[in-house]
Amino acid sequence: MISRTLAAELPDRVGRPVSVAGWVHRRRALKSMSFLVLRDRTGLAQVVLPAAADLPPEETVVRVDGLATANPQAPGGVEVTDAVVTALSEHATAPPFDLYRPTLGATLPVVLDNAAVALRHPRLRARFAVTSASTAGFRSALDGAGFTEVHTPKVVGSATESGANVFGLDYFGRRAFLAQSPQLFKQALVGVFERVYEVGPVFRAEPHDTTRHLAQYTSLDAELGFIADHRDVMAVLRDTVAGMLAAVADRAADALDLLGVELPEVPMEIPVIHFAEAQELLARHTGEDPRGEPDLAPAHERWLSDWASRTHGSDFLYVTGYPMAKRPFYTHPDPGRPEYSNSFDLLFRGVELVTGGQRLHRYSDYLTALSARGEDPEPYRGYLDAFAHGMPPHGGFAIGLERWAARLLGLRNVRETTLFPRDLNRLHP
Amino acid sequence: MISRTLAAELPDRVGRPVSVAGWVHRRRALKSMSFLVLRDRTGLAQVVLPAAADLPPEETVVRVDGLATANPQAPGGVEVTDAVVTALSEHATAPPFDLYRPTLGATLPVVLDNAAVALRHPRLRARFAVTSASTAGFRSALDGAGFTEVHTPKVVGSATESGANVFGLDYFGRRAFLAQSPQLFKQALVGVFERVYEVGPVFRAEPHDTTRHLAQYTSLDAELGFIADHRDVMAVLRDTVAGMLAAVADRAADALDLLGVELPEVPMEIPVIHFAEAQELLARHTGEDPRGEPDLAPAHERWLSDWASRTHGSDFLYVTGYPMAKRPFYTHPDPGRPEYSNSFDLLFRGVELVTGGQRLHRYSDYLTALSARGEDPEPYRGYLDAFAHGMPPHGGFAIGLERWAARLLGLRNVRETTLFPRDLNRLHP
Repeated sequence: MISRTLAAELPDRVGRPVSVAGWVHRRRALKSMSFLVLRDRTGLAQVVLPAAADLPPEETVVRVDGLATANPQAPGGVEVTDAVVTALSEHATAPPFDLYRPTLGATLPVVLDNAAVALRHPRLRARFAVTSASTAGFRSALDGAGFTEVHTPKVVGSATESGANVFGLDYFGRRAFLAQSPQLFKQALVGVFERVYEVGPVFRAEPHDTTRHLAQYTSLDAELGFIADHRDVMAVLRDTVAGMLAAVADRAADALDLLGVELPEVPMEIPVIHFAEAQELLARHTGEDPRGEPDLAPAHERWLSDWASRTHGSDFLYVTGYPMAKRPFYTHPDPGRPEYSNSFDLLFRGVELVTGGQRLHRYSDYLTALSARGEDPEPYRGYLDAFAHGMPPHGGFAIGLERWAARLLGLRNVRETTLFPRDLNRLHP
Repeated sequence: MISRTLAAELPDRVGRPVSVAGWVHRRRALKSMSFLVLRDRTGLAQVVLPAAADLPPEETVVRVDGLATANPQAPGGVEVTDAVVTALSEHATAPPFDLYRPTLGATLPVVLDNAAVALRHPRLRARFAVTSASTAGFRSALDGAGFTEVHTPKVVGSATESGANVFGLDYFGRRAFLAQSPQLFKQALVGVFERVYEVGPVFRAEPHDTTRHLAQYTSLDAELGFIADHRDVMAVLRDTVAGMLAAVADRAADALDLLGVELPEVPMEIPVIHFAEAQELLARHTGEDPRGEPDLAPAHERWLSDWASRTHGSDFLYVTGYPMAKRPFYTHPDPGRPEYSNSFDLLFRGVELVTGGQRLHRYSDYLTALSARGEDPEPYRGYLDAFAHGMPPHGGFAIGLERWAARLLGLRNVRETTLFPRDLNRLHP
């Protein structure tokens, strides 16, 4: 038996015997001959068969032995002739939609209910070539900058970010929670490795059914020590985003092509605007006056993104200095204006994509911050220890992988860039 | 301010002004002068100070500006003189052990209770350079073989492997479980990407307190389609293990050096013995007769490993064909001897390191297998759909990252290669 040829390799095999294998993407019986279009992980291959051939139904898995033959009419300029078809699976049940159409004509709930089959559609599959490449780029950018990859607990004894939106579970008879982020672990690990990253699931018991929220998503987390302030973190994030886009361009070129997506440029210096200045701009230009608000509304994020695009030619914009009031307890204040924080959001094409900033690093600051919020330091003991035993100034950021990919691909709903989403209503498949 | 020099870079800076930063690893006041040993992520640096200098306590984070000066007596042949010390943290509280001693003189429970600080010990930190490099090697081996990285749900509506040892949780008022493995997801995704891998947490409500079990561990999972049988999976696993070891040699050389670890060689062809044949061998040579047993005892795994080392010069041994009775429902039988399976274990230096095999791929086989075990197919509906809609012959494997690293480093307890272990008794820090 000769070894398998992938669809994308067929043009290099013209005139030679080949063995291709994959799913029956489409079958067509004409008067004078029949066709099978075979789908594998690299693309489609056309197979020519006699008119009377017995054609297995769509999605059946087959091996086809035959001859790679040039034909300018065939996709890729080559087809398989003199073909012998062997089924590798039983005859497949028809999916509830036609996978061979250029776009999948099904509503999102039908797609998600039938994810295992719907994801086979080349346009859906292509999205995950982009997420996969993005993750690889995230890692290689940080590997190159001296970071260490870590794996932290997803089951914790106390809620990490706040008591809200946390899943509880029974842990050998004790009360435990699913981690909402690796925040406190990655900070403690700055004390060990100085620079760490983690790619892993985080869990939010998000009681709202929106296009932006999931009960589980993939968080790309990074944290680094020995910084001057949040601007050092922003510089690392800039290079990380550039690395992610370079990896997508390099490893998912076919997917981008199929989806008709053009990647953004990351400026060497992403434009920066302070929160207070952003509010001034909005007051001056939008007819609204958001001054005094502790956060930006989604419409304001969109306006600022447009503004960055118009005035700086950038798809990216850093907003810095969010008021301390709306930031978590570990946030470092701006020493010059302590009502503002050394934090930032990275806006990308109208939405907040990344949140990050400098963290507190002095033990006594943690005790003060927790006490100011009326929180008991006791549940945080294991993490606060790291600070009592000496921690450098540090900061970090987290990128939501599904949201990043949705935005990059121009998709509205994060469920469209999640293989098997989990949300308020969805626990299957 | 000049930019930071890392400890490992000091030898290249002799005669020049430098700024180093890190933790006070050790302070020593002598009659005529004082010393600080500074620790950063790359190693140690010696700092010379006047006799009367005020030395911050161990673990305080400091920046030291001074002059890199050659001194054959100093570690690395260079020290920092004319030093000005600036504290970057408050004075550190003393840890419950001395981090500056060559080995950490503390029991495992004390180490784990104080993980955030204990992990700073160079020998402990070095272990995680090895896990991190192993993971990178796993990914790059599979990336090179056309695999796609995926992220699957960790919260599921039904137990994946069996009803036992599963954590339950309240999911918006519904009963849900933490995934014991990505098994059924990765199989379904073979239908989409043909070859997938995932690095992620898995959860086992393991009621036993042993050196080999954790409630959460990191599973390196792979699955591939269009195989002839389990031997194709074994070939991919062989190359993956070789890739992991190559990455460790390349990216964690200093850690191996510090720990005095020598890496094993992976033979081009890992020796293979069939389960039945292994039992014959054991009966012939050990004075015991395990024939009729459905699995190998740990002592038998050790004997077989020794045998492979003696007769084949290999630290690795494949045992194939485990009886169907002890394997999960998705296991593919050996077509020639259906009481045995197309499965394998990879033994490494006496312990089972990897389990894998060929899976069932026909929908009707799944219905038969579940029914034979008295299981209702309904909870598996979302996954079984993938098989109804056509799935190629496929198989895969899973490597427990912490167990792999422990075995590689000659450590007895998997907790020693886990940053923050979770087990029957441990939910903190």
